[in-house]
Amino acid sequence: MRIPILKLHNYLLISIQVEMDDNTAIQFQEDLLDKIHQTGASGVVIDLTSVEIIDSFIAKVLGDVVKMSDLMGAKVVLTGIQPAVAVTLIDLGIHLQDVPTALNLEQGLIKLRQELGE
Amino acid sequence: MRIPILKLHNYLLISIQVEMDDNTAIQFQEDLLDKIHQTGASGVVIDLTSVEIIDSFIAKVLGDVVKMSDLMGAKVVLTGIQPAVAVTLIDLGIHLQDVPTALNLEQGLIKLRQELGE
Repeated sequence: MRIPILKLHNYLLISIQVEMDDNTAIQFQEDLLDKIHQTGASGVVIDLTSVEIIDSFIAKVLGDVVKMSDLMGAKVVLTGIQPAVAVTLIDLGIHLQDVPTALNLEQGLIKLRQELGE
Repeated sequence: MRIPILKLHNYLLISIQVEMDDNTAIQFQEDLLDKIHQTGASGVVIDLTSVEIIDSFIAKVLGDVVKMSDLMGAKVVLTGIQPAVAVTLIDLGIHLQDVPTALNLEQGLIKLRQELGE
């Protein structure tokens, strides 16, 4: 299974609305980095509104993909982080201090424009 | 498997990037109509850029979902229709005459704004 990545202007939008298994997460990481490379996107919004719980593996992949995207020059904004997901991320020591967050996709796009000064 | 539906302002965005089986198509139809109802969205963009071929069942579901969304008050724009998909739709007599189409997601959103006079 693959998570669709939508390109809108300079941004990539992803809404995770399935329970990710390990393979899906790895495939998503690969697909996102490829897409950043192909499109030269300057920003990415990953919306987690529909994700109610994550395990340690998925949390690590998510933390990694944010750092990797950043290395490639694309700023990531995470949106819709639910309480249980926030708890898991912090409990696992996955600190996303420099990662802007927002309530939903619209707010995420606004934040991205601010961050990138566009 | 479910196809994610992204809400952006008054619009719903869908990018179909998987080969749909019958169940996925039916589930998508149901999810989209529910989401239109929940959000009161005025427009929908369905991007088919990654869909290279469709069978008669999926084509029918797609034709139906456009008409159903319209009945519910949401205008649908189809984007990225590939040659083989266009051939299948016409061969099967699924005429989407009143359905605006566009090259990609960005163009689809512009078209939607024009259609809705927003």
